[in-house]
Amino acid sequence: MSNRPRSSGRHFLQIPGPTPIPDRILRAIDMPVIDHRGPEFQKLGRRVLEKVKNIFKTKNNVFIFPASGTGGWESALVNCLSPGDKVLMFETGQFATLWKRMATRLGLQPEFIESDWRIGADPAQIEARLKQDTAHEIKAVCVVHNETASGTAAPLAEIRNVIDKLGHPALFFVDAVSSLASIDLRHDEWGIDVTISGSQKGLMLPPGLAFNAVSQKALEAAKTSRFAKSYWAWDDMLANNANGFFPYTPATNLLYGLDVALDMLEEEGYDNVFARHIRHGEATRRAVVAWGLEVLCRDPKYYSPVVTTVLLPPGHDADAFRALVLETFNMALGAGLGKVAGKVLRIGHVGDTNDLTLMGALSGVEMGLELAGIPHRKGGASAAMEYLAEQARKPAQKLAAAE
Amino acid sequence: MSNRPRSSGRHFLQIPGPTPIPDRILRAIDMPVIDHRGPEFQKLGRRVLEKVKNIFKTKNNVFIFPASGTGGWESALVNCLSPGDKVLMFETGQFATLWKRMATRLGLQPEFIESDWRIGADPAQIEARLKQDTAHEIKAVCVVHNETASGTAAPLAEIRNVIDKLGHPALFFVDAVSSLASIDLRHDEWGIDVTISGSQKGLMLPPGLAFNAVSQKALEAAKTSRFAKSYWAWDDMLANNANGFFPYTPATNLLYGLDVALDMLEEEGYDNVFARHIRHGEATRRAVVAWGLEVLCRDPKYYSPVVTTVLLPPGHDADAFRALVLETFNMALGAGLGKVAGKVLRIGHVGDTNDLTLMGALSGVEMGLELAGIPHRKGGASAAMEYLAEQARKPAQKLAAAE
Amino acid sequence: MSNRPRSSGRHFLQIPGPTPIPDRILRAIDMPVIDHRGPEFQKLGRRVLEKVKNIFKTKNNVFIFPASGTGGWESALVNCLSPGDKVLMFETGQFATLWKRMATRLGLQPEFIESDWRIGADPAQIEARLKQDTAHEIKAVCVVHNETASGTAAPLAEIRNVIDKLGHPALFFVDAVSSLASIDLRHDEWGIDVTISGSQKGLMLPPGLAFNAVSQKALEAAKTSRFAKSYWAWDDMLANNANGFFPYTPATNLLYGLDVALDMLEEEGYDNVFARHIRHGEATRRAVVAWGLEVLCRDPKYYSPVVTTVLLPPGHDADAFRALVLETFNMALGAGLGKVAGKVLRIGHVGDTNDLTLMGALSGVEMGLELAGIPHRKGGASAAMEYLAEQARKPAQKLAAAE
Amino acid sequence: MSNRPRSSGRHFLQIPGPTPIPDRILRAIDMPVIDHRGPEFQKLGRRVLEKVKNIFKTKNNVFIFPASGTGGWESALVNCLSPGDKVLMFETGQFATLWKRMATRLGLQPEFIESDWRIGADPAQIEARLKQDTAHEIKAVCVVHNETASGTAAPLAEIRNVIDKLGHPALFFVDAVSSLASIDLRHDEWGIDVTISGSQKGLMLPPGLAFNAVSQKALEAAKTSRFAKSYWAWDDMLANNANGFFPYTPATNLLYGLDVALDMLEEEGYDNVFARHIRHGEATRRAVVAWGLEVLCRDPKYYSPVVTTVLLPPGHDADAFRALVLETFNMALGAGLGKVAGKVLRIGHVGDTNDLTLMGALSGVEMGLELAGIPHRKGGASAAMEYLAEQARKPAQKLAAAE
Repeated sequence: MSNRPRSSGRHFLQIPGPTPIPDRILRAIDMPVIDHRGPEFQKLGRRVLEKVKNIFKTKNNVFIFPASGTGGWESALVNCLSPGDKVLMFETGQFATLWKRMATRLGLQPEFIESDWRIGADPAQIEARLKQDTAHEIKAVCVVHNETASGTAAPLAEIRNVIDKLGHPALFFVDAVSSLASIDLRHDEWGIDVTISGSQKGLMLPPGLAFNAVSQKALEAAKTSRFAKSYWAWDDMLANNANGFFPYTPATNLLYGLDVALDMLEEEGYDNVFARHIRHGEATRRAVVAWGLEVLCRDPKYYSPVVTTVLLPPGHDADAFRALVLETFNMALGAGLGKVAGKVLRIGHVGDTNDLTLMGALSGVEMGLELAGIPHRKGGASAAMEYLAEQARKPAQKLAAAE
Repeated sequence: MSNRPRSSGRHFLQIPGPTPIPDRILRAIDMPVIDHRGPEFQKLGRRVLEKVKNIFKTKNNVFIFPASGTGGWESALVNCLSPGDKVLMFETGQFATLWKRMATRLGLQPEFIESDWRIGADPAQIEARLKQDTAHEIKAVCVVHNETASGTAAPLAEIRNVIDKLGHPALFFVDAVSSLASIDLRHDEWGIDVTISGSQKGLMLPPGLAFNAVSQKALEAAKTSRFAKSYWAWDDMLANNANGFFPYTPATNLLYGLDVALDMLEEEGYDNVFARHIRHGEATRRAVVAWGLEVLCRDPKYYSPVVTTVLLPPGHDADAFRALVLETFNMALGAGLGKVAGKVLRIGHVGDTNDLTLMGALSGVEMGLELAGIPHRKGGASAAMEYLAEQARKPAQKLAAAE
Repeated sequence: MSNRPRSSGRHFLQIPGPTPIPDRILRAIDMPVIDHRGPEFQKLGRRVLEKVKNIFKTKNNVFIFPASGTGGWESALVNCLSPGDKVLMFETGQFATLWKRMATRLGLQPEFIESDWRIGADPAQIEARLKQDTAHEIKAVCVVHNETASGTAAPLAEIRNVIDKLGHPALFFVDAVSSLASIDLRHDEWGIDVTISGSQKGLMLPPGLAFNAVSQKALEAAKTSRFAKSYWAWDDMLANNANGFFPYTPATNLLYGLDVALDMLEEEGYDNVFARHIRHGEATRRAVVAWGLEVLCRDPKYYSPVVTTVLLPPGHDADAFRALVLETFNMALGAGLGKVAGKVLRIGHVGDTNDLTLMGALSGVEMGLELAGIPHRKGGASAAMEYLAEQARKPAQKLAAAE
Repeated sequence: MSNRPRSSGRHFLQIPGPTPIPDRILRAIDMPVIDHRGPEFQKLGRRVLEKVKNIFKTKNNVFIFPASGTGGWESALVNCLSPGDKVLMFETGQFATLWKRMATRLGLQPEFIESDWRIGADPAQIEARLKQDTAHEIKAVCVVHNETASGTAAPLAEIRNVIDKLGHPALFFVDAVSSLASIDLRHDEWGIDVTISGSQKGLMLPPGLAFNAVSQKALEAAKTSRFAKSYWAWDDMLANNANGFFPYTPATNLLYGLDVALDMLEEEGYDNVFARHIRHGEATRRAVVAWGLEVLCRDPKYYSPVVTTVLLPPGHDADAFRALVLETFNMALGAGLGKVAGKVLRIGHVGDTNDLTLMGALSGVEMGLELAGIPHRKGGASAAMEYLAEQARKPAQKLAAAE
């Protein structure tokens, strides 16, 4: 690709994360670093540790690690569990698979409810399995809220209800790496014990921060955990966070960005943010259907508002398609991962985006299908546009009246 | 508008300038200022003064002023002419009108070839007028290369030929504020005496720099000019530029940006840049035609690759439409100016942009038409998309073969 | 210099402007450009046009041009005067000389009160000259508030009193390019008719904005001015500014910076800013005296709080000294200009700086004197430090008590 | 502190890390994030993974984690060792103490050679202990290269020789968090098995990257390690890095910065960088001695070129002193940690700095001593200045000859 001319214009980053970082956030990160033990940092630390609770909808502690979201997985497991513990996981896609692999590597005994990646975590199957566990050997139920690989989302409240109904004492761990600040998540209301997230999706930040929102029950469990741990240990975090500080050097510049990101989300309004993601998911699926292609997620109950995974017709290489689109239209689409590698492409519609950017992206996919000779019907972009215009009409009318 | 939530995603700046500034350029501008009389500045000054000649296609001097493009107009006039001089101008639109107003204010006698703003400067009419001027009272012919208001472009080489054919000694002044680095312009080959430009269009910079590319004939004329002048005086520029310096404090940080902008244009390739603008103009016009609306420019000979001015059906307020689009879709469209105020909207497709951004923009216009209840046919965005895909096919095939 | 290794650390920009730009301001400038005719710009325009009045201490209009401070000189002259008008100027240094040269080029008749550059504008000499002007042929008195070349400041209130005492109707023009936001200036109280300034000094911005704060009397005078003008014309500014807009494309990104700069000055407190500059001037002169060198300004009444011009012993080349300091210590000092070129160096202590930066700078000068073999006594930096510590003691005690 | 006016000028960040981040690096980090699985990232990944080897002086792999340096400690331990393993550590200061605490928490058996924090790791004591370990129960020798708390540095080559001389098979782990890119470190030549570092010191980056440079012996040891691990696991890193990728989302924007930081270090020249740190350490100690204060490090063999820890006279609170200096002079000094908390202050002279910045900092300390009423002699800054001028003379002469 090096002998190609410079790609003009703005890059379309339509992967399900990292997501486009707003300029305000990039500029905040681009400020001189300060002493992480000084009074100015302390104010920052206190402020972000407090404000970040809102987006998790929790009044409990949220721990922030200088790490990837993957580190947040590990932190949840090693703080609350002990080697040999049984955990129940649901195979929603590649990220659930990697989390299970991590559990195995750490010496846990994950039990995987297998699935074809075409639905999110199914409360009924979880219920069935937990019901069998009369000895309460399962210490935690681990669910990926939004499975970035397959474009499915899990009904967390229903899963919570299932656990409650059975009176099962298992902890409830939620991977919200790609859902936080994009899909509604209510840590306290839904009785989540550890909500794990990362900075580079709905929070509109570069990668480099991992989050653990915790419950009192999780903090209790941490006291008896027999995992050896240090970097991920919550006790040190708890002690230091009380004063706005961290047990080791935090990723100060990302905290600058987090401070601004949380303000921006509040300025837009969480409900507006969630509604926007839902709208973009629907618009994208309408385009896919109009093209005559298939959405990987086969049950509307599990549709993801964050990413749409699209099956290409057999015999067409999705990676070649993505490379063509990248070179021709300066747009990055998400790759198929794991068992759907090469077979699907993923259209991200997450983070700081808007209707016109989505229309540009869908137009790029439609033109790419044409250029790549992939059998499809035209009119996908038009179908999305029609839907978006319809949706836009409502607030426009309301606003016209209000102003 | 203050009680609206934050607009998410990237703003679509679809006015015919200022244009979207690439991040590389913004970051270059965002560097500490240095001593404008020191050795590091001197290297910068020499480099940009030399490199900038390439985009004008000249081997002569290019003067750079800390000013708007408007200042470039004034500089051209007061350096080469004298109070009371007659200049011939062509009414291509609002900017030609403003330039004429300036000439009048400065005490020149502009003669305006009137027009309905629906064509660019017409060589035949210019020829007819110059032919009458046997006494050579007309000291300069002033042409707007790309008339930002009306979306028309002028055939500069033809106008040059007309002047040459008649052997008329008038100077040839070209306003290339919105054409430079977007439409091919050949200062030397076309015998332009002063090419005036600004930073905030094809050069992808913030506003704040004005340019005068000059000919030897213009420098000669400057020696006998009787205008009082100081800030705009070329003699001081000439003397100081010889060493890479400027007669007064230059806009150093914009020069950092210019340095990078010129590199980026070379990386993309001037011909690729020009072809991209032509392609986007055609795509936009196809959308307009498909909507059943009218392009203001009525003769394909004068179509602008930089901006498309679109007539709304009578009785529909273009400014209300633009306000709706801005609020609903976070996109700025250009206003109708002067005698077409409120009647037209202008879709800019200039500077650092690409196919998908244009598709987002055209989708936004189409959705806006729907929301505003402006009579139109659907399918404009689709028509543009079809054309862009066709165009993309060629290089894609070529590249596939080459790699 | 190209074969030297990279200079480490922060560059010390100790010239009397451009001054170091705070990161907050650079980041503000580094934001995407917006439509200068749209509602968001309008809010910005209104805000900065209003806020900027405070730093001039005026309730009248302040015009902002995309230009250097030099453009502000021209604007003042061509808006209020007419060709052939007599203006009285005082030779405070190179900038007064350049302003006079401009007046001459523009066709005015400047009368220069000559001086040796070692004092600021002297009220007594101005009085003497005005007293002779019984015919009131002098249409304007032009004074450089802070003469950047010589390191002198003018007692503006006294000069105002002189004019008033004589009942002379001349306009009072003040070049405050390097004094605004560093030395107290009271446009209204001191009856200044046009205060001219620029962005790159006390306002802590990159170069590229010129200012004209005006009086009612100046606006009246503008109505009868016979200068041909367009770019600098106040009437268009007045009309457009009323709505927060500008008659031609403004330097939008610098206005973003101005918005922040004005906030920062208020956060520090104008009086604190002025006191800081006075303190740094005194500290610097104490260093110079301790080195056994001579301050160019020979009368304490005229000492500049912005820049200290230092005479080197005869036979020592100040430019060679500055080059040595730049290469060895990564510090830029100001060059001697005009008739003191090569004989003096200028130590800027203006804009966003603090005690420790000044100590670094003075240490660099002292080490440079040593390295260059220029006869001097040691102890200059120590003398400055002693003074600064003394000064710091007071607020420190006060603060200790308050907290 | 909130009722104080804004602190003007540049903050002096004189802690031993994070260090001042050069603007070029901040601007690189402030670029839009890209797909970490795409071709552009792949080029970046390959480039930084290759270039970073140079600063470690290794031809082996360097692993880069999105983590603090603390994570690098953990990664080294859990990849090469097994629970219950005995490791030998030397109590150089707080960071050695924290590393030992981590080892304990992870279930290792650290043996601590206790010390008063006033010397670096002593080869003789290490030799004595290893000699006793005839059973080779000690699996690793862990040494902090530069102990940030006490301002001491360890003679790594000597320690390597000791291990070799005894033929002891222990692995050699070096904490180079605050030494890398500031003090010469030769991973391969000195037979280090894991060199641990972080981004926020000599590399001039924000915190957020941890490094593990490894040896073949370490990679072998990793194969038999019995620690459960996932995030820190080298095997996944090794497999992914081979293609320029990472096993989970990397801190992309910090990698942009690393790319530039490594270039800047090469532009300055590693040896120049190391010499600069040595020079600044010596200058600082001369100041301390001149003030009549005591450097914590009591043996010149162990002097740190990165940070100087200074003992205040008994009865004087170092933290109150630092708060005074921060408020009065906008300078952050390092706090005393652990057993010297409140008794010492730490002057950092590490990362992207220069002579004048150091002079500003030392002047600030001297003025602070005066204001705080701490008994001292004047002349510390002068002593430093004299030394720096002497040192500057040499290259200046050399350069004068060369140019």
